[in-house]
Amino acid sequence: MSMLVVGSVALDSVKTPFGSVKEALGGSAVYFGVAASYFTKVRLVAVIGKDFPSKYFDIFKRHDIDTSGLTRAAGKTFRWKGQYMYDLNQAETLDTKLNVFASFSPKIPDAYKSSKYVFLGNIDPELQLQVVKQVDSPDLIACDTMNFWIEKKPKELKKTLKHVHILVINEGEARQLAGETNIVKAAKCVLSFGPRALVIKRGEYGALFFSKDHIFSAPAYPLEEVFDPTGAGDSFAGGFMGYLARSGSGHPTDLRRAMIFGSVMASFNVEDFSLKKLDNLDWSHIKKRFEHFKHLTNFEMIK
Amino acid sequence: MSMLVVGSVALDSVKTPFGSVKEALGGSAVYFGVAASYFTKVRLVAVIGKDFPSKYFDIFKRHDIDTSGLTRAAGKTFRWKGQYMYDLNQAETLDTKLNVFASFSPKIPDAYKSSKYVFLGNIDPELQLQVVKQVDSPDLIACDTMNFWIEKKPKELKKTLKHVHILVINEGEARQLAGETNIVKAAKCVLSFGPRALVIKRGEYGALFFSKDHIFSAPAYPLEEVFDPTGAGDSFAGGFMGYLARSGSGHPTDLRRAMIFGSVMASFNVEDFSLKKLDNLDWSHIKKRFEHFKHLTNFEMIK
Repeated sequence: MSMLVVGSVALDSVKTPFGSVKEALGGSAVYFGVAASYFTKVRLVAVIGKDFPSKYFDIFKRHDIDTSGLTRAAGKTFRWKGQYMYDLNQAETLDTKLNVFASFSPKIPDAYKSSKYVFLGNIDPELQLQVVKQVDSPDLIACDTMNFWIEKKPKELKKTLKHVHILVINEGEARQLAGETNIVKAAKCVLSFGPRALVIKRGEYGALFFSKDHIFSAPAYPLEEVFDPTGAGDSFAGGFMGYLARSGSGHPTDLRRAMIFGSVMASFNVEDFSLKKLDNLDWSHIKKRFEHFKHLTNFEMIK
Repeated sequence: MSMLVVGSVALDSVKTPFGSVKEALGGSAVYFGVAASYFTKVRLVAVIGKDFPSKYFDIFKRHDIDTSGLTRAAGKTFRWKGQYMYDLNQAETLDTKLNVFASFSPKIPDAYKSSKYVFLGNIDPELQLQVVKQVDSPDLIACDTMNFWIEKKPKELKKTLKHVHILVINEGEARQLAGETNIVKAAKCVLSFGPRALVIKRGEYGALFFSKDHIFSAPAYPLEEVFDPTGAGDSFAGGFMGYLARSGSGHPTDLRRAMIFGSVMASFNVEDFSLKKLDNLDWSHIKKRFEHFKHLTNFEMIK
């Protein structure tokens, strides 16, 4: 099934205890798109500047990502500069230059409007709602958000959430959005805002899925080498939504598998800087790690 | 199979955002013992003072815990005073009065020496080693420790670890003991000190089991009401070791189940203050929650 992603394309400069990259390809729509591309055909809506390196188009091509919704605007590409200390769960932003992303107003090409799966990356909730209004009748709309929007645009965010089926956010943000420390209570509160499901990302502690009747807990993959957590959340969302689009089902069996495929893609992503790892997978890698997740969590019932 | 536990018996005064208790029954040997008592017969070695309330003996009796190794010494019982703020993962100690526990020197009664399962609660590693030397030939020895001993007696702790099969510790302490942030590397390092397995407790994020060839991830039970995390780690250890003693097997299938039974007992424990919840369970509660854990983590393979 067709997947539309709307979000950022960025040039990231990242430093971790294990190395650094300068102006590497990044952004929520990119991490999501490449991760999802292993499961389904991806259509991208984002904005880049005149300075966007043409070499990065090779990555989109390699993953058969439709870039006809990628606008090149006058000005420079969005840049993010950040670092991670030994606690790889916490990014420290050193510099953000929105550049052309500051006036991003997503226009969905006609050919994209019939997309059955839609992911709204972490952008202004008013822009997210604009996207919802432009698409025909998707089977599933999921969105991300962040502390900035929870603080600055709570009303607009809640309005958007009424039109979204699944919210995918970080644990701290779920607590902040609900104004509640206990994660189960926080999840119930967020569900009361409109979405029928909530995915809570917990970094190296995995992810939780909540709906009215279901809770599912996915572990993170215990990795000996974590080089760069940038994009882990979007890679998770890409694997999660990608598998749902591939299966074309919202059955709990597939939602659970989707959580694991999200965890699989996030675990690959953090194993190298930028898109280096995510760019070079094949289905056998993904399937093998999915099986590892089974082995990591499976236990036998008692008689 | 017979289970010997050596540790503390304490009177805890605890305050959380949801209430408080004064001089309630606590201590590592108590939480461990009551949790393990649902699986196997427990023998207790600990020290109490002259002021230990006799009413608390009813709890030991109710759980058929052998207290012939419980010494009543001249002086007062060990007291701990602590509080938890909204982050229930982190206890803040307000006051510790070791009292009779300060000169605790565990003497294993002859009748206990043939115990096949031994748990060394969080006491001085030199005392833990003394216990190991007093028992005949247990099938399994597990121990706990804490930051205090890692800092003050690293050599003694490492000596003890050479005689222990399983170390059960908190995540932060595993990192501290290994001098390594990455949890997989930290686990490998700790295993190199001697134990053949390591259980890492992560509070509301569950627990990890590591051996040379196996990693198993157990989630925490998502609870809407967490009243008091005191004793969660020892209840976990009690469920974990208790099930291993009951099954009499060290097979990976049973180690995995044991991790879940540990999680089950910890999840019950935090639902009320002191021993209130743990004291009043029956096997049907435990079995039902074990099944809930299966539902929480289970997913189907893909074809």
